Amino acid sequence: MKNLVLKIEFDGTNYHGWQRQNNAVTVQETIETVLGRLMQEDIKVIGCGRTDAGVHALNYVCNFETGTNIPASRFPHALNSILPYDISVKDCYQEPLSFNARKNAVGKKYVYKIINSLFRPAIMRNYYLHFPHGLNIKEMQKAANCFIGEHDFRGFMASGSSITNTIRDIHTLSINHIEQELNIEISANGFLYNMVRIIVGTLLDVGIGKISSNQISDIINSGVRSRAGITVPPQGLYLEEVYY
Amino acid sequence: MKNLVLKIEFDGTNYHGWQRQNNAVTVQETIETVLGRLMQEDIKVIGCGRTDAGVHALNYVCNFETGTNIPASRFPHALNSILPYDISVKDCYQEPLSFNARKNAVGKKYVYKIINSLFRPAIMRNYYLHFPHGLNIKEMQKAANCFIGEHDFRGFMASGSSITNTIRDIHTLSINHIEQELNIEISANGFLYNMVRIIVGTLLDVGIGKISSNQISDIINSGVRSRAGITVPPQGLYLEEVYY
Repeated sequence: MKNLVLKIEFDGTNYHGWQRQNNAVTVQETIETVLGRLMQEDIKVIGCGRTDAGVHALNYVCNFETGTNIPASRFPHALNSILPYDISVKDCYQEPLSFNARKNAVGKKYVYKIINSLFRPAIMRNYYLHFPHGLNIKEMQKAANCFIGEHDFRGFMASGSSITNTIRDIHTLSINHIEQELNIEISANGFLYNMVRIIVGTLLDVGIGKISSNQISDIINSGVRSRAGITVPPQGLYLEEVYY
Repeated sequence: MKNLVLKIEFDGTNYHGWQRQNNAVTVQETIETVLGRLMQEDIKVIGCGRTDAGVHALNYVCNFETGTNIPASRFPHALNSILPYDISVKDCYQEPLSFNARKNAVGKKYVYKIINSLFRPAIMRNYYLHFPHGLNIKEMQKAANCFIGEHDFRGFMASGSSITNTIRDIHTLSINHIEQELNIEISANGFLYNMVRIIVGTLLDVGIGKISSNQISDIINSGVRSRAGITVPPQGLYLEEVYY
């Protein structure tokens, strides 16, 4: 047996997220089906984590055990020729049998993309959040700095989560602004459920002046979900990188 | 009566181009239907030109006569609330009754977007040409310069076109390269049918060394369609600007 790793780009628009579900088409199920067909084996794929419906991935990492003789380097072309067009394998390499894409991940980077224009975009509608209100980017950048470091982010987690350790360490949080496009990039040792989308919602509240950047540390320390911003929609979110 | 101009962004993926057709859904028909519903009038829209199925537009210009009292500034929001999500009105303003979006156009700018990567992209598959082979960008830029100016472009026109005056004046032709993304931007006083897509196909032939940049002037002067490159597919093409 050998342990193969895949790096995958997928367009989340037409999937109910990564994780296999009984009543909906997911990325995991699609990849397992295609791997099974290619190798005539029953393949179980371990993903680096869940993603929500509509969320995209630029470099999703997953691994699977197989008895195949096909060399790793042959997998991207072989899989891309039978996968649907909204999933693409960018790399495949072998790791020791002990490697687990979820358990061995030591960090992740996400990017959230926003089009800040008066009228809604037509072409990029499934790949950006459209935000029509004027934004104070400098204030947003000040607020972003308050998130960096180790904090208890229980106020930035979807209510109903059962996780008990809500301390995470945000390594970087940057806001890049080119014309009408705003990219919010955030890396951490791990993320709570909906954490990126709630942080972005909070930064947008700072951008329109509803929250001051001075309040951010207070809001984090309070641990109260309702003091943070809304959970912004999934289509602007991309899993950009997984660190091992 | 007044003459109103619309600036429109549309995602061409799901349309059979701009121009109204009997058996297919087009952008023109969709806009005429929505304008008619908004104003309870029978509206005929004049577009700045045809576009092919799958081609996108960032700033398509069209005009229509109407007896409405609705101010021009109200149109974008009113139309965007009832148009499908893949069409968006970005601006509306009044022009003299003599203005005609097609006849008064003195030039157009297109951009053709390419992803130059080994494996096909998943997320941007409908908005870029995927080109997997290595490209010599410097040679492509040399070749691009040979197209600039007034030439007879009959060799860069889809065969079967009935147009007799095939002289056009290319004002700018630039190749911008950022990581894996290649944007070819081209402006001219007008374009023959498929001219941008054949020029891009020819530049890609230069990029892979099939044609030398020294041959370009010869190929243009020969007027022979088969000496130029292929017509690249529509999904990488965007109408970027119309000049009046």
